[in-house]
Amino acid sequence: MRFVGICQYDGSNYSGFQSQKNASSIQDHLELAISSIGGLEERINYAGRTDAGVHATGQIFDFLPKDQREITQWLQGLNSKLPNDISISSIQKAPDDFHSRFDATNRSYTYVIYTGKTQPIFLRDYIYWEKQEIDIKIMRAEAAHLIGKHNFNSFRGSKCTAKNPVRILHSIDIEQRENFIIISLCANAYLYNMVRIIVGTLLDISKGSGKNMKTILNAQDRKVAGKTAQAQGLFFTGAEYKKINLDLQDDVTNPFSFFIGSRQ
Amino acid sequence: MRFVGICQYDGSNYSGFQSQKNASSIQDHLELAISSIGGLEERINYAGRTDAGVHATGQIFDFLPKDQREITQWLQGLNSKLPNDISISSIQKAPDDFHSRFDATNRSYTYVIYTGKTQPIFLRDYIYWEKQEIDIKIMRAEAAHLIGKHNFNSFRGSKCTAKNPVRILHSIDIEQRENFIIISLCANAYLYNMVRIIVGTLLDISKGSGKNMKTILNAQDRKVAGKTAQAQGLFFTGAEYKKINLDLQDDVTNPFSFFIGSRQ
Repeated sequence: MRFVGICQYDGSNYSGFQSQKNASSIQDHLELAISSIGGLEERINYAGRTDAGVHATGQIFDFLPKDQREITQWLQGLNSKLPNDISISSIQKAPDDFHSRFDATNRSYTYVIYTGKTQPIFLRDYIYWEKQEIDIKIMRAEAAHLIGKHNFNSFRGSKCTAKNPVRILHSIDIEQRENFIIISLCANAYLYNMVRIIVGTLLDISKGSGKNMKTILNAQDRKVAGKTAQAQGLFFTGAEYKKINLDLQDDVTNPFSFFIGSRQ
Repeated sequence: MRFVGICQYDGSNYSGFQSQKNASSIQDHLELAISSIGGLEERINYAGRTDAGVHATGQIFDFLPKDQREITQWLQGLNSKLPNDISISSIQKAPDDFHSRFDATNRSYTYVIYTGKTQPIFLRDYIYWEKQEIDIKIMRAEAAHLIGKHNFNSFRGSKCTAKNPVRILHSIDIEQRENFIIISLCANAYLYNMVRIIVGTLLDISKGSGKNMKTILNAQDRKVAGKTAQAQGLFFTGAEYKKINLDLQDDVTNPFSFFIGSRQ
């Protein structure tokens, strides 16, 4: 019996989601916890490979255990074995042929910018602190040019190995709440560092760099876009599937809900 | 010329405020930063000696530098030299005979309890996560018995060296906001671990331990009170002085403002 889980993690102390030699990854911790409870037939699958320092409020993973356990046993068992910066918010049964990565039709990310005047020392690992004035109207207008099916070559990191640079960006929402600017993206998939380069470029433009998103997109050249925004403000917030219904609630997956408590 | 400053810190990675051998303290970092900018005639003074893991949103310290510098030079210089989990929010001139500790007439602390159902992994260092139901009305009613001038022997840690166990508790406010319970205390001074033992005892009572705060207070015996609440939820939020007026704004010193941004 295959299971699918939703997990949250603070990526600050990890090398990223994917298992790597001589590094501490979220995947290693999840696999170790699952193995110790009910064995593991094969390595786990997951929806998004987040980088070092990137967080998740709605990462999806699936696993095929050796032994049979109840859903509540998995949930409680895994949470008791995982470190206190990784947490499972739900576990459910999945079809045998389910695959968190290959079956995902959409993936969502949220980037959190803090615009307060005092240094946000308690949130420093979860935000990008922007000290300059930001024009959110310009940011919204320019971001809109990215929506749709495009060649996102201008927004791919140099380490990107994808053959096809075309992705479909379904939405990019920019919301201001208190001292925070929250940028939420939904796309079928992403090129390497795509979200962070989009955010970095939006920050440049909104601070008056004089650049134009349409020109940058059409150039299909990484050098034309802005810098890669730091990993710390980025959260993987969820994925969508046709084969299963996931209980991804906004008041859990929106990073803002961690700062204010849920249901504002 | 003596200066007084307000500083904030995330105490997670420090042995506490006070300088100690073979440990990393807030005091050491502040003194190192001040010395490198304008020299230091003597060790700094400070309002409250917070323990390892305890945070501050309004710690007060004063220093007597060797060289003259403008206030903006101190503020910018110190913030550029301090690590990113310590921050100075203001610097002002003080009378030559000012002493942050001896001149303080009142000191304030706030303890943050989180009552949400999902593990608060992003706030884990700043809250105490209470999974059981809490009756906040009982908590408020029982806390009221502590207000006034009392012998607080029941609420002093075993390492406490104070000769006089009498303190004046001016107020203890308990507020519920979203998933948080925020306990704020103001007293002339505190015994060692006094706030954490008061919070631990209030938690016991509010979960139905059957204990009674008046009896515990009158017993003047540490064994009768509840356990010491963990350091992580505790914030030093300010001190008051007759000699100077400090600009301690609630939207900066209330720990909740870090989670929601200021001015809700």
